[in-house]
Amino acid sequence: MSDENLGSVQYGRPSQVPFGSLTGGAPQQHQVRHRQLNNPAGTAASAAAAAGVPAASSSRPRATSDYGSIRASALHQARLRIESDVDCVSYAPDVTVEGTERQRLVDNSGEWYFESQHAVSGEELLSAKFESLDYDTCENSLWAAEDQSRTVWDLRRIELCRWLVHLLIGVVTGAIAFFIDVCIEQLAKVKYRYMKSMLDRCIFHDCLIYALLLWIAFNFIFVLIASCLTVFGEPVAAGSGIPQIKCFLNGIQVPRVVRLRTLVCKVLGVLFSVVGGLAVGKEGPMIHSGSVVGAGLSQGRAASFKFDLGIFEYFRTDAEKRDFVSGGAAAGVAAAFGAPVGGVLFALEEGASFWNQGLTWRIFFSSMTSSFTLAFLLGFYRGIPNDLSNPGLISFGKFDKLDYDLLHLAIFACMGVVGGLSGALFNTLNEHLTKFRHRYVTSKLGQLTEAVLVASITAVTSFVLIYTVRSCQPLGSDQMEYPVQMYCPDGKFSSMAALLFQTPEAAVRSLLHDPVGTYSVTGLIAFCLPYLLIATWTYGVMVPSGLFIPSLLIGAAWGRGVGIGLNLLFPTHFTDPGKFALIGAAAQLGGIVRMTISLSVILIEATGNVLFGLPIMVVLMVAKWVGDYFGTGIYDMHIELASVPLLPWEPPSRSAAVSAQAVMSSPVTCLYRQERVSRIVEILRAEPHNGFPVVSGDLGPGTFGTFEGLVTRNQLICLLDMRLFDDGDPNFHLANPVSLSDFRRVYPRFPSVRQLQLSEADLMKSVDLGRYMNPAPYMVLHTCSLARIFRLFRGLGLRHLVVIDHRNQVVGLVTRKDLARFRATHTGDLKELQFTG
Amino acid sequence: MSDENLGSVQYGRPSQVPFGSLTGGAPQQHQVRHRQLNNPAGTAASAAAAAGVPAASSSRPRATSDYGSIRASALHQARLRIESDVDCVSYAPDVTVEGTERQRLVDNSGEWYFESQHAVSGEELLSAKFESLDYDTCENSLWAAEDQSRTVWDLRRIELCRWLVHLLIGVVTGAIAFFIDVCIEQLAKVKYRYMKSMLDRCIFHDCLIYALLLWIAFNFIFVLIASCLTVFGEPVAAGSGIPQIKCFLNGIQVPRVVRLRTLVCKVLGVLFSVVGGLAVGKEGPMIHSGSVVGAGLSQGRAASFKFDLGIFEYFRTDAEKRDFVSGGAAAGVAAAFGAPVGGVLFALEEGASFWNQGLTWRIFFSSMTSSFTLAFLLGFYRGIPNDLSNPGLISFGKFDKLDYDLLHLAIFACMGVVGGLSGALFNTLNEHLTKFRHRYVTSKLGQLTEAVLVASITAVTSFVLIYTVRSCQPLGSDQMEYPVQMYCPDGKFSSMAALLFQTPEAAVRSLLHDPVGTYSVTGLIAFCLPYLLIATWTYGVMVPSGLFIPSLLIGAAWGRGVGIGLNLLFPTHFTDPGKFALIGAAAQLGGIVRMTISLSVILIEATGNVLFGLPIMVVLMVAKWVGDYFGTGIYDMHIELASVPLLPWEPPSRSAAVSAQAVMSSPVTCLYRQERVSRIVEILRAEPHNGFPVVSGDLGPGTFGTFEGLVTRNQLICLLDMRLFDDGDPNFHLANPVSLSDFRRVYPRFPSVRQLQLSEADLMKSVDLGRYMNPAPYMVLHTCSLARIFRLFRGLGLRHLVVIDHRNQVVGLVTRKDLARFRATHTGDLKELQFTG
Repeated sequence: MSDENLGSVQYGRPSQVPFGSLTGGAPQQHQVRHRQLNNPAGTAASAAAAAGVPAASSSRPRATSDYGSIRASALHQARLRIESDVDCVSYAPDVTVEGTERQRLVDNSGEWYFESQHAVSGEELLSAKFESLDYDTCENSLWAAEDQSRTVWDLRRIELCRWLVHLLIGVVTGAIAFFIDVCIEQLAKVKYRYMKSMLDRCIFHDCLIYALLLWIAFNFIFVLIASCLTVFGEPVAAGSGIPQIKCFLNGIQVPRVVRLRTLVCKVLGVLFSVVGGLAVGKEGPMIHSGSVVGAGLSQGRAASFKFDLGIFEYFRTDAEKRDFVSGGAAAGVAAAFGAPVGGVLFALEEGASFWNQGLTWRIFFSSMTSSFTLAFLLGFYRGIPNDLSNPGLISFGKFDKLDYDLLHLAIFACMGVVGGLSGALFNTLNEHLTKFRHRYVTSKLGQLTEAVLVASITAVTSFVLIYTVRSCQPLGSDQMEYPVQMYCPDGKFSSMAALLFQTPEAAVRSLLHDPVGTYSVTGLIAFCLPYLLIATWTYGVMVPSGLFIPSLLIGAAWGRGVGIGLNLLFPTHFTDPGKFALIGAAAQLGGIVRMTISLSVILIEATGNVLFGLPIMVVLMVAKWVGDYFGTGIYDMHIELASVPLLPWEPPSRSAAVSAQAVMSSPVTCLYRQERVSRIVEILRAEPHNGFPVVSGDLGPGTFGTFEGLVTRNQLICLLDMRLFDDGDPNFHLANPVSLSDFRRVYPRFPSVRQLQLSEADLMKSVDLGRYMNPAPYMVLHTCSLARIFRLFRGLGLRHLVVIDHRNQVVGLVTRKDLARFRATHTGDLKELQFTG
Repeated sequence: MSDENLGSVQYGRPSQVPFGSLTGGAPQQHQVRHRQLNNPAGTAASAAAAAGVPAASSSRPRATSDYGSIRASALHQARLRIESDVDCVSYAPDVTVEGTERQRLVDNSGEWYFESQHAVSGEELLSAKFESLDYDTCENSLWAAEDQSRTVWDLRRIELCRWLVHLLIGVVTGAIAFFIDVCIEQLAKVKYRYMKSMLDRCIFHDCLIYALLLWIAFNFIFVLIASCLTVFGEPVAAGSGIPQIKCFLNGIQVPRVVRLRTLVCKVLGVLFSVVGGLAVGKEGPMIHSGSVVGAGLSQGRAASFKFDLGIFEYFRTDAEKRDFVSGGAAAGVAAAFGAPVGGVLFALEEGASFWNQGLTWRIFFSSMTSSFTLAFLLGFYRGIPNDLSNPGLISFGKFDKLDYDLLHLAIFACMGVVGGLSGALFNTLNEHLTKFRHRYVTSKLGQLTEAVLVASITAVTSFVLIYTVRSCQPLGSDQMEYPVQMYCPDGKFSSMAALLFQTPEAAVRSLLHDPVGTYSVTGLIAFCLPYLLIATWTYGVMVPSGLFIPSLLIGAAWGRGVGIGLNLLFPTHFTDPGKFALIGAAAQLGGIVRMTISLSVILIEATGNVLFGLPIMVVLMVAKWVGDYFGTGIYDMHIELASVPLLPWEPPSRSAAVSAQAVMSSPVTCLYRQERVSRIVEILRAEPHNGFPVVSGDLGPGTFGTFEGLVTRNQLICLLDMRLFDDGDPNFHLANPVSLSDFRRVYPRFPSVRQLQLSEADLMKSVDLGRYMNPAPYMVLHTCSLARIFRLFRGLGLRHLVVIDHRNQVVGLVTRKDLARFRATHTGDLKELQFTG
């Protein structure tokens, strides 16, 4: 159209966004409440206005709780439009602005943990403080120039570097797994040797109370170390790390989650928490560790230790980093379970939305290398250098025969139901505990106290169980290193001690492979229930802790109970209770974590039996269905409790009728192609947002300019920092050549706008954003449906999506948070979550 | 925004597309040559003009060879713009239109095979005659209404149906695999029993020539049947079907590839071609068969047999169908190799670009069910009902010990190099043969003759090899059913006959497991070379034929040769030649097909040994790298020979600087929101295209209207067929309610425009396209780069992408063919392929 009405442009009209003329309907009013930012927004805006610069909208309530009112109206409108089937809807929404300035009480682990408000009210909220990662390439002119200047050898070098980094990721992750394994083995040896000699002595000298005290002391000290590392070292290292990695791969910036410091605390912490006798495994933390390795190696530096190799500079973008983190996560799974294929599938299931053949192949390479490195090192360590039979930290041991028929399959499905129920129970208990914990256990001291309390109680419970449940098994039926005789006759030892007096991994193997008659049903029940409760309590304590092993142990225990029961009833048909222990373990784990294909493959690989895949899959499927009826899996539950705006796989149901208008944030702060430095600085100071559409002046009513491109906060900061002030000189960039490398060098820690040193003269200059902006980012028409926006976002890993009207004028901006608040209810309806401050 | 200047709209300005004012540069002229379509375009256009209807552009040279001139200029311009770094480029391209009207000589297998021109000139071409599939949802008002009207029970029912269909796919595919296996076993038993008794007799009576004749006769008859089924039954059933399925999953409509008729011909054909002694396997065809099962079951009907159950109507869209075809392909792999996880990865590697957790889980379910069904049925058939140890058609047998050390790994990598070279040789020979075949063997009779010739020569070669290579092995070392003594002493039998006198699957197992000393190195070499040549010749003959088994057999033979050699040199270190046979098999197969992760997993699952994964992966990786140096894998090679516009995984290198302007087709035929029936009919008759942007009248120079939405040919045909002529009446649709079901009912065989029965009165009416068009399809700015468009297309499975300018006016349309013609050269540069007519 024309530029003639440039003078009459109306900026800063945040209160009215009429689309009537576009959709054929009457104007709909979205009343948006202005919100005072911490930054001096109002000041900046008025200053800008005084300076004659169009101030744009000085507040854009993206992802603030102001949405409450817009949202309700948006959904309502959408429904109205469909029901009436006539486009002319005139609808004025209720303007009920909810109390937005909720008291924030962030605990000392910082960004990850949810706010107290949430735990108190129990309502579902989303936190606005998580930033997103941007997996989309900014295809500006610098990028095009770089792409064009690259020779085929450059391309090959980059490709080679990718493979090299993936190789290194595999090797380092495998080495870390080896380190953890050997340390735990040695420390556990010391602990259980002392304990055993004490116990054996005390049975005769009646000093069992001292044995108990020694046990408590061991647990106390080890767990105290683990907890100190977590609480004082790096709080984000607590737990399994899988939820955090899941969020990272989903595109959410969880602060400090892939730092070297986190890795160190995680690795050392998990050592001590496992040796400390807690109901935890070392597998989940391996996945997190692998991811950190992936992130660190690919960037060629460790920010925690101010250490920069200066290599692999090309990989310093969110998208490249994500690929390597995927590889690291896969390598972690591979090393943890000896399941390289499972690792690849885990990385894909949890992370990558866009399947890429080359990437998958490299991830597989990382996984394989990781497994191989672990097996190789363990072979050397154990003095059989060419024995590569230990590709994972956990092994279910070798099953001679895992046959089944249709009757078995039916029983397995029933066990899946039990696993689903028991998993849901676990999750529900843990959810309440977590809420309680984040309300009352917020101080560092409190967290330490809880950790050592759990450690002590675990020791006491174990001791009491071994003391009271007196089932015995003959020596030699198990490869246990320190069998405890307790009150058993000579030549036999306590079978309860076989479960509690060794690391949980070894206990799982015992349940899977010990011969018929080793355990009694009552003994297994007596073990199962307290252990379930302790494991529930343990997950969430401030120590690095994996959930796989305790889940498998609980499941294997009741599964073996089922097997023993069936063996008693039909001794000819059901001969092997170990098979049922395996299925029970799968059912329990599936009921808790609700992973699907990757867990199936991990278990198939860990059992080393392809033919037993179908039963495992059926059990996991049933457990997931049953469990999902009661709530989400534990990882998703913790993500929800942390109020993270995670995007699920599919758009919520009934999202077809919700249009971009209802989803987007508006008003939008826009910049001009040739923009004054002072205005950029003001906007950056006033606004917390990360993406700014670049527009030209041809405005219509209620829009924010003709869409030309998108520029991000980081780019603007870099431009200002490099003083690329061309003042409209077309030859400026020839004299001041910049390349993408200059931007990547600062990644990912761009300076804040307050750190920039700009003189008064600088502020009066102007920048040509056209050279640096993304000239053709993805965009949608305002008529676009939520479902479509969702698929675009999820499929391509976007951070910003510009919404335009039929004249290509910017009318809104969609971010991850705008999308994440739409969820499907149990009844298939659409609901909208609130944002906390 | 307004429609007032509707009268002054200028349609049909195909020769000038100026963007100067938008990009800040001077206008660039794209001179586009008009091309006479087979349809009476000119007539229609002039008739329309006479009737006062804006004729639009009567020719839009999308995907025609007219691109030659645009293309060259586009790339050149892009480079110019980057090099000069100034936007003001004025560049007039050479208008050299190449000879476009090439003589088309499509052979009688129809659409799949490439044109003779191509084979003759050897240049790379793309065929314009392949239609694309549309995996994007058309989110029109009908869709929104349907989505809104659906209860949570509807959603659950659909989900349940999905699972049900995937279960059925698994069961039916497994049953088909069982049928093939049993038939081949029985037929092979008859053949080899007769042959053996004849041979045993003739050794004494010196009538070996009759034995040879009998062998030839057997092969001749069986292969004749297979070939007749293919040539007369369904030509697209020839070959392995993997390239065709790969294309289908990529989004290309390969005609008749998922029909029931194809399935029948494929299944029966593969039986006879395997029993006919050809160097073929039954595994590739299983993948194709599974895909047909997936497509057929999900649609609830078989078009070949005019049979419609009327169920699963919701699944009648391209996107849903693709999901089920993926499941079918995975089930096929699972049944063929007993590799359910490999099946899932195959479906993902070859097909799905968007990874979806739910879908993957269902695909896995199909795979598992398929393996289980096959194992279950085979167990029953063999009289051991609960033995589920045969989950696949091929099994590599049980390896007792597959240990390796770093030295082994190095040797394996070298074998990977050999596999890559030998695979490249195979592919090059096959490429030349295929070109020759499609030039000279085009008649049905010729194809039949070739098939039986190959069969006879295979018999003669086998016979000569058994006759001349006289290495013997003791009886009982192999589980061969019909050992042939030939000139061996009593108690021994010919080891060459162990390779040639049974089905290739059994021969592979012999090479993997026979004890040391069974085969001689000379014997293996004598076997390897002729068999390689025969296998090369066989792949492409008009019979259903799998490539996996012959490749594995060749590789296992030379691999075992390597193993024997090493065993002779270092008898203590390399004790097991079977291990090297396995690696050789992997190397050869990898060198030929170049699949990566799925092949690794398939082989890991087929060997049943997770620990041996790393060597297999290393070998496949090396073989792929070496092979890729000489050319593509055999499936991609056949796809290229067929000139199919397949989209690779990643955009070609150096595509950053190519803008949408250079990629898109222009001019574009646009429709108005309220459009006259006569004009729609004329456009549909005159144009072969499938997508038409819907615009409003607010035009700028060189553009085609303000973009409002996109309507497809099929939708238009349905609208016309249903006579939804509202003539501007806003209440029309209330009186004439339609739903998406009405559109799905006709899917996928929409009537042609000529089949519509429209009266003169009908033609004068008008249609409101607004209700049926997609109101917010994906679109890009004309400044968007090729790389970005590519990712959008590939990631979301699009068929059309509208290109708009900065005023949201349509300036072009991008289709798959526009993208597929851009390829990277060996030097990393961008090249553009030509389209054939």
